[in-house]
Amino acid sequence: MHISELDTPVMLVDLTVLEDNIRRLQEELTALGVAGRPHIKTHKIPAFGRKQLAAGAIGICCQKVGEAEVFAMAGFDNILIAYNIVGPSKTARLARLQHLTHAIAAVDSEETICGIAGAAAEDGVRVPLVVEIDAGGHRAGVQTAEEALALARRIADLPSLAFEGLMCYPTTDHVTPILLEAREQLTRAGLPPEIVSGGGTGAQRRARAAGLTEHRSGTYAYNDMNCVRNGNATLDQCAMQVLVTVVSTASPGWATVDGGSKTFTNDNVRANGHNGTVLEYPDVFLSRMNEEHGILSTEQSERRPKVGEKLRIVPNHACGTTNLHDYVAAHRNGTVEAIFPIAARGAIR
Amino acid sequence: MHISELDTPVMLVDLTVLEDNIRRLQEELTALGVAGRPHIKTHKIPAFGRKQLAAGAIGICCQKVGEAEVFAMAGFDNILIAYNIVGPSKTARLARLQHLTHAIAAVDSEETICGIAGAAAEDGVRVPLVVEIDAGGHRAGVQTAEEALALARRIADLPSLAFEGLMCYPTTDHVTPILLEAREQLTRAGLPPEIVSGGGTGAQRRARAAGLTEHRSGTYAYNDMNCVRNGNATLDQCAMQVLVTVVSTASPGWATVDGGSKTFTNDNVRANGHNGTVLEYPDVFLSRMNEEHGILSTEQSERRPKVGEKLRIVPNHACGTTNLHDYVAAHRNGTVEAIFPIAARGAIR
Repeated sequence: MHISELDTPVMLVDLTVLEDNIRRLQEELTALGVAGRPHIKTHKIPAFGRKQLAAGAIGICCQKVGEAEVFAMAGFDNILIAYNIVGPSKTARLARLQHLTHAIAAVDSEETICGIAGAAAEDGVRVPLVVEIDAGGHRAGVQTAEEALALARRIADLPSLAFEGLMCYPTTDHVTPILLEAREQLTRAGLPPEIVSGGGTGAQRRARAAGLTEHRSGTYAYNDMNCVRNGNATLDQCAMQVLVTVVSTASPGWATVDGGSKTFTNDNVRANGHNGTVLEYPDVFLSRMNEEHGILSTEQSERRPKVGEKLRIVPNHACGTTNLHDYVAAHRNGTVEAIFPIAARGAIR
Repeated sequence: MHISELDTPVMLVDLTVLEDNIRRLQEELTALGVAGRPHIKTHKIPAFGRKQLAAGAIGICCQKVGEAEVFAMAGFDNILIAYNIVGPSKTARLARLQHLTHAIAAVDSEETICGIAGAAAEDGVRVPLVVEIDAGGHRAGVQTAEEALALARRIADLPSLAFEGLMCYPTTDHVTPILLEAREQLTRAGLPPEIVSGGGTGAQRRARAAGLTEHRSGTYAYNDMNCVRNGNATLDQCAMQVLVTVVSTASPGWATVDGGSKTFTNDNVRANGHNGTVLEYPDVFLSRMNEEHGILSTEQSERRPKVGEKLRIVPNHACGTTNLHDYVAAHRNGTVEAIFPIAARGAIR
């Protein structure tokens, strides 16, 4: 079956481009001497995570216990949940996960440490933890090396926990001296970090200066228009598009497709068009979105799409788009190889 | 079970507020002499659509064939799909739906009409259609009364189709004279429209001037911060919140909760906070979102949330939020009455 025969809207993933993207980053990391730990939030599909391991990744990163459960069940044996796991339901699941896989969590407070320690003790397991350091975004992480050391000591004191190291997101110039100082202090205190984990698509160039042992990256597998605009990818390196159908050209200068913000998200939406690139019509812009309508401006294009025509649109944000869809059509050169369920979509807890 | 015992993030719907919202709009429409046809895109739950019918609605509105299928299977017998249905797969499904329900579609072109007519003829059914008139948003709909008349004549000429009337979205001052003129021309041509359908939460005040027979409204059932800002609802009339847990307060002046843009969407996101209202802390703002982190600014609040605390956040856009979640917890006064699957989530085709 050719992708043009698929009903729309549907996510397409070009397997050749995906595999090239995975290989290219792994080669870059190998040259840097830094391990790769891909973030599966971008695709949420175990079969694609397998491709990342096969290329040389040491494990994967998840953001939610629910995502880690899906990947643990699929046989992934080294998972970092880069998130403070809080509350009795989720800490119990994190402890239970240790029977299936090596699932590391991130912490930035005494409260989170104690919650996980209690659940781990109750389940008779030891949960490995890394201490998160704020990279400057104020979303999570301790502010100083001293705080990181204090939390590491607390972890090391609790028999149901294991101190594994440090993490930050993304790897920034702000966090680099704090990471280096924390590593120094931990080593002097007899708690040398086994893991120093940084991340962010494109941020691998800071990995060595920050003394990272591993780099976490998600979007690089698919790439998207944000990556193209940031210079981290070319349009040809975008593995994922959404196939849509033109449903209306009744208003002159405009063409409407059957995917809007419930298909593409409003992530990084721009007021004046360029909310996705139409591969078939470089001069046509995804100007606005309503929930189920994507409104293309066709005024600057000599050729104009017609009702019934199918178009491929590269979204602004791949990870958000994945989160809206239940399936992807994986293809090579347009020939569909498989329809994959996005297994960890909806695993929000 | 009390809602505070639920794991987070989770959508909450207060059934008493929902029922009040449904009753209040229906009373307003009854007083206007205009029928109500609620749009189910906001909740995507047949049980909530039943409440809308029980309050007096004549039928429902959907935006996708997939949504209409879910509601037809649940026994809804009068469904307007307010969308151009294009392509052989979807037109065949639209025809097949006629065996189950009265499913009306909207059209704005000869191509869409012919596609539906062919599928209907093949299935041996008659598909009812309304002609869409552009309300000024350039997303769909013919521009003039003359074009509407020409399409109505085309529909009336085809034995597998039935002309039912006109629709627009939303009901605007721009579209009102075109609707009135089209109605006049159609009546003179012997094709008086049985349905003249307008819509938009808050736009019912224009229904009579536009000569509508029915009003379509979705968001009014839940309401959201957009409705509060537009003056169409009060905060007390917002039936839906997302329950989240504070996972980090490591950065002074900030508190992070376990729901971000994959829980709330970036719909109508505002650069400087106010991306959702925290019921428990009126002076705390949802300042920014990453995919799984919601970052609250706590600086202007004397009281500060603590790690592990659960908060209810009213989102900017209820319909987008629904589209991200698989379940809602329906409650009265905080006591959970049912966990409903969002049956038509993911019905994007």
